[in-house]
Amino acid sequence: MAKVEAKALKLTRKKIAFVGSVNQNMAPNIKAMLVAKSDGLKTFYFASNNSAVRTEQFMYNRNACLYFSDGPIYKGLMLEGIMEILNDHDTKVLIWNDSFKSVYKKGGVNDPDFCVLRFTARTGRYYQALKSESFDIK
Amino acid sequence: MAKVEAKALKLTRKKIAFVGSVNQNMAPNIKAMLVAKSDGLKTFYFASNNSAVRTEQFMYNRNACLYFSDGPIYKGLMLEGIMEILNDHDTKVLIWNDSFKSVYKKGGVNDPDFCVLRFTARTGRYYQALKSESFDIK
Repeated sequence: MAKVEAKALKLTRKKIAFVGSVNQNMAPNIKAMLVAKSDGLKTFYFASNNSAVRTEQFMYNRNACLYFSDGPIYKGLMLEGIMEILNDHDTKVLIWNDSFKSVYKKGGVNDPDFCVLRFTARTGRYYQALKSESFDIK
Repeated sequence: MAKVEAKALKLTRKKIAFVGSVNQNMAPNIKAMLVAKSDGLKTFYFASNNSAVRTEQFMYNRNACLYFSDGPIYKGLMLEGIMEILNDHDTKVLIWNDSFKSVYKKGGVNDPDFCVLRFTARTGRYYQALKSESFDIK
């Protein structure tokens, strides 16, 4: 693994991602979300709701980005890719955590409003001090 | 000032904003930036560069958002509005801080690449725990 990718991966361990979406007015939206599960720099899963504003946004435009920050602004990572809305039972079980019970009160993992957002990255850009370095994610 | 706006204003004192933009592929971008100056919840200024990727994005689509977070994800504030690129000397002097000297090496406040991004908010959404509250910004 290249040096920049190793540094980028370290930042994703913070588990809090700022998730970017585009709404129907062509305006950007951001929300901080907890990463429920991830695989390298390629795949990130989030627990969400079918009724959520953000889920509706990704139905219309699946372009998405994630930003990971290291407290101060000296280091940052932006991943660009797409966000899919998944409602299959296997994926729900894959990311389920019993701490979600307090959120999905109508049946836990079977709550009809529970959905999974799966982000798949295509490219990354790592910021440190005033420099940045871009890389592809395979 | 309403209670939610007072709580929102407190979050903006962190001085680090996650700035959202939309690129020419209709995809969202995010970058952490230092707030150089602000006025309530309405106006936020950032020091940037005319040559920067983000500045070019705001030339094509001035829709923007700011997200302020309180470390953990329990509290967050999203402001939606527009971002203008300003190059007039008065605005540059208004937000100039001598610590910028190390960044704008070709003439400091007169560096031709130095520009100001001014965000003007229209609406806000404040998140706490699993609830959110929206409000207009006048």
